[in-house]
Amino acid sequence: MVKIGIVGGTGYTGVELLRILASHADADVRAITSRGEAGTRVVDMFPSLRGKYDKLTFTAPDATDLKSCDVVFFATPHGVAMAQARELVGAGVKIIDLAADFRIRDAKVFEKWYKLAHACPDLLEESVYGLPEFHRDEIKRARIIGNPGCYPTAMQLGLVPLLEAGIVDSQHLIADCKSGASGAGRKAEVGLLLAEASDNFKAYGVSGHRHHPETVQELQGRSKTPVGLTFTPHLLPMIRGIHATLYARLTKPDADVQALFEKRYAGEPFVDVMPPGSTPDTRSVRASNVARIAVHRPGDGDTVTVIVVEDNLVKGAAGQAVQNMNLMFGLPEPSGLTAAPVLP
Amino acid sequence: MVKIGIVGGTGYTGVELLRILASHADADVRAITSRGEAGTRVVDMFPSLRGKYDKLTFTAPDATDLKSCDVVFFATPHGVAMAQARELVGAGVKIIDLAADFRIRDAKVFEKWYKLAHACPDLLEESVYGLPEFHRDEIKRARIIGNPGCYPTAMQLGLVPLLEAGIVDSQHLIADCKSGASGAGRKAEVGLLLAEASDNFKAYGVSGHRHHPETVQELQGRSKTPVGLTFTPHLLPMIRGIHATLYARLTKPDADVQALFEKRYAGEPFVDVMPPGSTPDTRSVRASNVARIAVHRPGDGDTVTVIVVEDNLVKGAAGQAVQNMNLMFGLPEPSGLTAAPVLP
Amino acid sequence: MVKIGIVGGTGYTGVELLRILASHADADVRAITSRGEAGTRVVDMFPSLRGKYDKLTFTAPDATDLKSCDVVFFATPHGVAMAQARELVGAGVKIIDLAADFRIRDAKVFEKWYKLAHACPDLLEESVYGLPEFHRDEIKRARIIGNPGCYPTAMQLGLVPLLEAGIVDSQHLIADCKSGASGAGRKAEVGLLLAEASDNFKAYGVSGHRHHPETVQELQGRSKTPVGLTFTPHLLPMIRGIHATLYARLTKPDADVQALFEKRYAGEPFVDVMPPGSTPDTRSVRASNVARIAVHRPGDGDTVTVIVVEDNLVKGAAGQAVQNMNLMFGLPEPSGLTAAPVLP
Amino acid sequence: MVKIGIVGGTGYTGVELLRILASHADADVRAITSRGEAGTRVVDMFPSLRGKYDKLTFTAPDATDLKSCDVVFFATPHGVAMAQARELVGAGVKIIDLAADFRIRDAKVFEKWYKLAHACPDLLEESVYGLPEFHRDEIKRARIIGNPGCYPTAMQLGLVPLLEAGIVDSQHLIADCKSGASGAGRKAEVGLLLAEASDNFKAYGVSGHRHHPETVQELQGRSKTPVGLTFTPHLLPMIRGIHATLYARLTKPDADVQALFEKRYAGEPFVDVMPPGSTPDTRSVRASNVARIAVHRPGDGDTVTVIVVEDNLVKGAAGQAVQNMNLMFGLPEPSGLTAAPVLP
Repeated sequence: MVKIGIVGGTGYTGVELLRILASHADADVRAITSRGEAGTRVVDMFPSLRGKYDKLTFTAPDATDLKSCDVVFFATPHGVAMAQARELVGAGVKIIDLAADFRIRDAKVFEKWYKLAHACPDLLEESVYGLPEFHRDEIKRARIIGNPGCYPTAMQLGLVPLLEAGIVDSQHLIADCKSGASGAGRKAEVGLLLAEASDNFKAYGVSGHRHHPETVQELQGRSKTPVGLTFTPHLLPMIRGIHATLYARLTKPDADVQALFEKRYAGEPFVDVMPPGSTPDTRSVRASNVARIAVHRPGDGDTVTVIVVEDNLVKGAAGQAVQNMNLMFGLPEPSGLTAAPVLP
Repeated sequence: MVKIGIVGGTGYTGVELLRILASHADADVRAITSRGEAGTRVVDMFPSLRGKYDKLTFTAPDATDLKSCDVVFFATPHGVAMAQARELVGAGVKIIDLAADFRIRDAKVFEKWYKLAHACPDLLEESVYGLPEFHRDEIKRARIIGNPGCYPTAMQLGLVPLLEAGIVDSQHLIADCKSGASGAGRKAEVGLLLAEASDNFKAYGVSGHRHHPETVQELQGRSKTPVGLTFTPHLLPMIRGIHATLYARLTKPDADVQALFEKRYAGEPFVDVMPPGSTPDTRSVRASNVARIAVHRPGDGDTVTVIVVEDNLVKGAAGQAVQNMNLMFGLPEPSGLTAAPVLP
Repeated sequence: MVKIGIVGGTGYTGVELLRILASHADADVRAITSRGEAGTRVVDMFPSLRGKYDKLTFTAPDATDLKSCDVVFFATPHGVAMAQARELVGAGVKIIDLAADFRIRDAKVFEKWYKLAHACPDLLEESVYGLPEFHRDEIKRARIIGNPGCYPTAMQLGLVPLLEAGIVDSQHLIADCKSGASGAGRKAEVGLLLAEASDNFKAYGVSGHRHHPETVQELQGRSKTPVGLTFTPHLLPMIRGIHATLYARLTKPDADVQALFEKRYAGEPFVDVMPPGSTPDTRSVRASNVARIAVHRPGDGDTVTVIVVEDNLVKGAAGQAVQNMNLMFGLPEPSGLTAAPVLP
Repeated sequence: MVKIGIVGGTGYTGVELLRILASHADADVRAITSRGEAGTRVVDMFPSLRGKYDKLTFTAPDATDLKSCDVVFFATPHGVAMAQARELVGAGVKIIDLAADFRIRDAKVFEKWYKLAHACPDLLEESVYGLPEFHRDEIKRARIIGNPGCYPTAMQLGLVPLLEAGIVDSQHLIADCKSGASGAGRKAEVGLLLAEASDNFKAYGVSGHRHHPETVQELQGRSKTPVGLTFTPHLLPMIRGIHATLYARLTKPDADVQALFEKRYAGEPFVDVMPPGSTPDTRSVRASNVARIAVHRPGDGDTVTVIVVEDNLVKGAAGQAVQNMNLMFGLPEPSGLTAAPVLP
């Protein structure tokens, strides 16, 4: 049994971790902290978990001993994990941060986008970007994981094979991404109200979104040529799901992109390359850790269109975090992540 | 032209007033106040109104001369209208309060439910409950209107004919009501987020809701026998619309309830009694001031089921307020309220 | 391993059975039939199941040997199960019918509501109504299960304890029920289109719904006094979930209804009686076999309001069917049904 | 008063025409045909129109005299208008076809995409593409209007100014478009059910969509250089609204695209160029004929991102048709189209 602590368990990634870990044979959630909800029983806040965590209570961060855990997940705002990392790692506890503290290699870039000085640049250096499809071996050996953002996961899964193969104009990539409202987190904002955001659709962050630098960093790491990316996030009137529609111009029009993707992801437990002509819908991965990918060349032209769907809370957050945990502790990679998607 | 002021125009009833008044031939919105948004152009906050109110700017309540208006609508939290009523009425300005300050006759009942002492019990006494179908003549002569709540409008339209006719057990009325999320107002609350409230349904306020005393007061005023009401509000995963499903036990099983309703509302411009067997949907009144009513007697038993649908922001709030304004100023009652419902 | 056949697997209850059984340690789905989709791979029709049933293909009913199965689920329209029951039962195969063929004891009542003569009244006689909370022992011994309807499950769970205790006016029960659109099945009807049914709410079947006789039959079986029920179903603008708001008049006002429900369902693995004052939402049971119940007495009056939420496709259909299968085959009752609800 | 006939009034564009024309001071709807609903009162099919068209009844096409009308709208499937055009035009009746019969200049291209031989190529030649912002003068003189498709309207409004100015690579335009479900029409298809399409998002027609040739034809007509367009339509889980996110690479990076759009659409009653930095949402034009446009240059790079929102049933269909009628009959262009958008 892996002894688990969760810091900041009242948001969507926190409750999703709890949901997933409830079905994980080797998971033992020992502690869950929340400054605001200390003293509240988990099941009183989330009645959906009644019968699963009846004895678990949110505790104050300061009053919680996390050092006896094997791993601590940070389902917190940016900046929290890096403040506690040194002490925990020093005590032999592994860290999986679902926020951005350990995603961006360059502390200055982090500072620019997140308006925070990095608290532990040395630990940042040893930390690993937790996208198993591209960093599996490093993850197995890591003490600190920067769990990828939801959009970046989708964009990388769809664009990396093209960049690795060197067959597209890497400087003019376009990522038109759409996310369900849970991606914005469980926070009280007028713009996220049902009465505002349902039966409605809009772009946001067009001039710059925090997931841009993280994505460009990782894409660049897989590309021999300079990467330029136009990224447009949009808010979907639904709860879960990301749909990335990615466009790249082929520099080698003879390339068999379908075969490229099938080969690249052969054997991957959580990446499903669909048959040619497919248009996967987001519900086909609802509540599941699978990402599905389809590749198109409309009109047989030189533009390749790649579609990636994922559940932003699972493969885009908590599921990927558990996948990383499994790798770090030598467990079967799919442990706790095998339930079929919920459809309809 | 009626010179109009709106106090507190940043909520849903405020923006709905603006939408309706934009098509009203005799309406001239002169001023709109908002403590938080003073200085913001209305169209910058609500781009849907671009081209309609390009010169209108929210102003600070204290810095706004409302006494030159003919009428002031209060689209504010409870307690604001009564604080300003005396000064405005004294200056000859009529008041239509969309909150609860002038709905409840008994200041003690008001105090109990709204936790506020009433600021002007004398004005409360002269104020009129603004449900035109039951108080039309008083409204024409009124200086102060307490505009009904959204649920109470639906419940009264469906139950009053039965009570007036004295054909039901008035002590055991049941109102199972469902409202779209806009009924909760434009306020940042976690429970109203799309990610919480969509694809979801729940009851709330089962043990007591502020619309209960107002409704009982008005029902009692139309009934010769004591009124008892069980009222269960529910939150619908949609934006607009109230559906009241009302149950009463017939004490005179021979009554022709269909005929009763048709006769009661004959000639009413905004109450539509549907043919027997109908189940009106909320969208059939979306964005319109019409309420539709259907009457059923399942299995020809002694329970009568009355269905009432309305748009909570129109007949349940801003539309009814404009209907009241029309009556108060001798305008045609349907002015500004004639657009067909938006379907689909 | 239980060898399983599914007849008619292309509707929502069929695909939900597949989803649930994919996580069931003792389930082996051997065959799935569909007249219209014979030859289609299951995963081509339902890509959400890719990786779970890659070798399973819909086969024509006539060309499928179901007699080698241990159990056959009928996820078909009414009338199909009874036509095949004799042959299968004769071959030692157990039957769980998710349609209505084996729900109604009186073949004439069945005929009246379903416009079909019953094909095997003798088998109807031995069949068992598959609501484990009230018929567990009979289910264990049954060869044929009539799996309850979605609404009837919710209504019975909420009303039976009151009737068994004899503390309410059993002749004037009111069930105001709301269901997500999946309850209407996966059939192409204009009224169920997203553009019709979303952002909308309506009642239907007010004058009579097929779930009424089944519910009255079962309620009557638990009541010493005659049962009368007014049942109003409504269509919710969402996918999954039933919310039953049930009203009864107490004849014994001193009764402790909270304690009554807690005692009645103590130890039940899939019925959760909530603490006093709760208003469970449908998402608290989304994709799960749990039903949650809350009991209220608004204003301490003589009306008791019982709220029941369930997932119409799980506890209201496929999950309950698997629960029945577990009982019939001596498996742990919760097998395959333990995943936590999906929230948000 | 313009005497109006509507052919095929039971779909979404038909009922939307009725909704809009109900508020049009100069519109007199004389006849509405429907093969399937002949004899049905309009208000029995669409209760939202009760009180607006109480005397209007659907009539059989063959039994309806449309020749006494001034104008006939075809809200029909493709192929119907061209079959009746000659007779009506010969009788002096003007035609506005909301389907595709008169959109595509080249009869062979029409045939390829719509699988229909064109019935009247000579009338096709004189017909005018009904996008007032680009063809206003021709529309005023036209006898036959091919009313644009919903997607093409959005794509042209966003791309034409760039092409006219000759400042982008016209061969690699990308249009990532998202539409509400009403765009698919009022037809019973499983994929459009609420239980399938809500809480879900997907692309479709990636390899080719009928709105592609129409759009390329019109874009080409405004461009001095060859046009190449990658068009990806997606289905949004909502009723109304199109959001087009358009990408083009600037060949003249010094261009002031904001100024270009403002100048191009100055004085246009139904095109609203938003301030820099805007991200208009679809609800900002709900139920209105306005299209709103925002222009972005993310990271000041050489990619320009243009956002266009419209209501697919209004500016994308029935509203634009009425705008065309107004132009053809010398009425004020905004007649019947001035109501403010419905928000929330």
